[in-house]
Amino acid sequence: MSGDINRQIRLAARPVGLPRRSDWQFTETPVTGPRHGEVLCRVLYLSLDPAMRGWMNEGKSYIAPVSVGDVMRAGGVGRVVATKHPGFAVGDHVSGALGLQEYVSLDGAQLTKVDPNIAPLPVFLNALGMPGMTAYFGLLDVGQPKPDETVVISGAAGAVGATVGQIAKIKGCRAIGIAGGPAKCRYLVDELGFDAAIDYKAEDIRKSLRAHCPNGVHVYFDNVGGDILDIVLAQLARRARVVLCGAISQYNNTTPIKGPSNYLSLLVNRARMQGMVVFDYADRYPHASREIAAWIAAGKLKSREDIVDGLETFPEALLKLFSGENFGKLVLKVAE
Amino acid sequence: MSGDINRQIRLAARPVGLPRRSDWQFTETPVTGPRHGEVLCRVLYLSLDPAMRGWMNEGKSYIAPVSVGDVMRAGGVGRVVATKHPGFAVGDHVSGALGLQEYVSLDGAQLTKVDPNIAPLPVFLNALGMPGMTAYFGLLDVGQPKPDETVVISGAAGAVGATVGQIAKIKGCRAIGIAGGPAKCRYLVDELGFDAAIDYKAEDIRKSLRAHCPNGVHVYFDNVGGDILDIVLAQLARRARVVLCGAISQYNNTTPIKGPSNYLSLLVNRARMQGMVVFDYADRYPHASREIAAWIAAGKLKSREDIVDGLETFPEALLKLFSGENFGKLVLKVAE
Repeated sequence: MSGDINRQIRLAARPVGLPRRSDWQFTETPVTGPRHGEVLCRVLYLSLDPAMRGWMNEGKSYIAPVSVGDVMRAGGVGRVVATKHPGFAVGDHVSGALGLQEYVSLDGAQLTKVDPNIAPLPVFLNALGMPGMTAYFGLLDVGQPKPDETVVISGAAGAVGATVGQIAKIKGCRAIGIAGGPAKCRYLVDELGFDAAIDYKAEDIRKSLRAHCPNGVHVYFDNVGGDILDIVLAQLARRARVVLCGAISQYNNTTPIKGPSNYLSLLVNRARMQGMVVFDYADRYPHASREIAAWIAAGKLKSREDIVDGLETFPEALLKLFSGENFGKLVLKVAE
Repeated sequence: MSGDINRQIRLAARPVGLPRRSDWQFTETPVTGPRHGEVLCRVLYLSLDPAMRGWMNEGKSYIAPVSVGDVMRAGGVGRVVATKHPGFAVGDHVSGALGLQEYVSLDGAQLTKVDPNIAPLPVFLNALGMPGMTAYFGLLDVGQPKPDETVVISGAAGAVGATVGQIAKIKGCRAIGIAGGPAKCRYLVDELGFDAAIDYKAEDIRKSLRAHCPNGVHVYFDNVGGDILDIVLAQLARRARVVLCGAISQYNNTTPIKGPSNYLSLLVNRARMQGMVVFDYADRYPHASREIAAWIAAGKLKSREDIVDGLETFPEALLKLFSGENFGKLVLKVAE
């Protein structure tokens, strides 16, 4: 607590390509706070996300970049250890932008209480956290799937993708996932109830997609960009909706991003491609959380986390996202 | 008439790159028809359109390709010279898919009567024809511009683009056109009332766009694709709409189409890019035609045609579209 040491990971340099160990700086400062209106949290779990790679770049985006020298931004869940905000008590669990560190003191208005009786804490970084909100609003608001339509999801075994596919099934759609490797593909079909999964590392994606989507793709939820986006574009159904959620294949490019050559399929098929940023839906998170929690309670939706232990493992752990090594939502455990 | 000679232009080969003279075959057949339910038309004016280039290619698109050996597809206006359909009288003027020929006999259901008292006949191939319908529904239905928003149009001096910009002004938007050469740019601003025009042949488009769109681009109506699409994507406003109407810069490519590298601007800006095909709006053409005719009558909307004389000039005339030589809607005059 106050007076204790707070270990932190800061952005030391803007990465070129994949982030390297030298792009990070490990610092130790005394724990301070809470000041008036603030809550001091012990950080327990941190969310590792592909979007982090974007935050490390300079330039205008949907959110300000992390400044060189600052503690790296990260969502997380923690436990209140001291409080000067009337809405929080010591021992409460909270989620928010805690950052890559062991302790943080934040304005209570920036924190949300979470109830560990509803689900284990890491789930609040997955199906009940940003990935779940992204899946929910990206699929339902932007993708607007109708029953019996075919929904294709890339990065389908990832945190967002797995929830997208399960919500698609709950809504009466066919769900086809694209993922890397036989274990993830089996998991999608056997555990999560996807109708089919395509192993992009082993299969001819074009051919498998045609086989699984004889009437074309009605909704494509894109987490990866690159060649897979192009292949799916070529197989859109009339009036298809492409949800642009991410482009993980392009985040570490040192050459210009590969634009989708088949974009004119949008014209021929009167289809649309639309971007989404989850923060826009913040006022509807409570509703979505309640609905997702109910699906989890009813056994209709599963949340799988891949938990890596220790703050200091962050630089290597992050890279698992870009190699596809993680299996489930990648979470960093900072403390019990 | 029946017994007379009908000169026709047929597709002789599928072009590679720009269509060459050898891709066309000139034939002469006796004029036949009309059969029961048909109307025999003398073709007067034919519409030359960028879309024709797509119809010459093999493969699935929004419309079947023209078969090698068939009379080339073309919209046009003509005069009824004989009729076996109760809805038409000799001397009526009609529009429809007449094809590249001097006479055609078509089912009356495939023809629409046009009234030369409303506008000169070539206008029924421009603001009161497919280009006008494309501009109207593409801008209003897909682009959904709101007053005071900035609408950017590429190919702005072309048949579709000029009407898009004028409708944008009628709806209270700012209209910025991108066109080739000072004469077209002056025309857009001085004659059609655009707020500004950017000469893509002489200006740094990126810089000019930034100067003319300080709050970003709210609606981009794209007729050209390629580099210009990429430049505009980088300057989208939040929740912008990109209307994909065409990609004339790419139609004669012999290499793969250039996909828009900046497509992730759609994500960052929560924007959408949507394709449109005018035929989908056929049941609403009459309403749009009445509204456009009223704008023309009120002096709010101008329709400019670039008329080329003689069926036999078609192979060269068509190429003017791809070099940008035409100034106004390109129309082939076949007969008085």
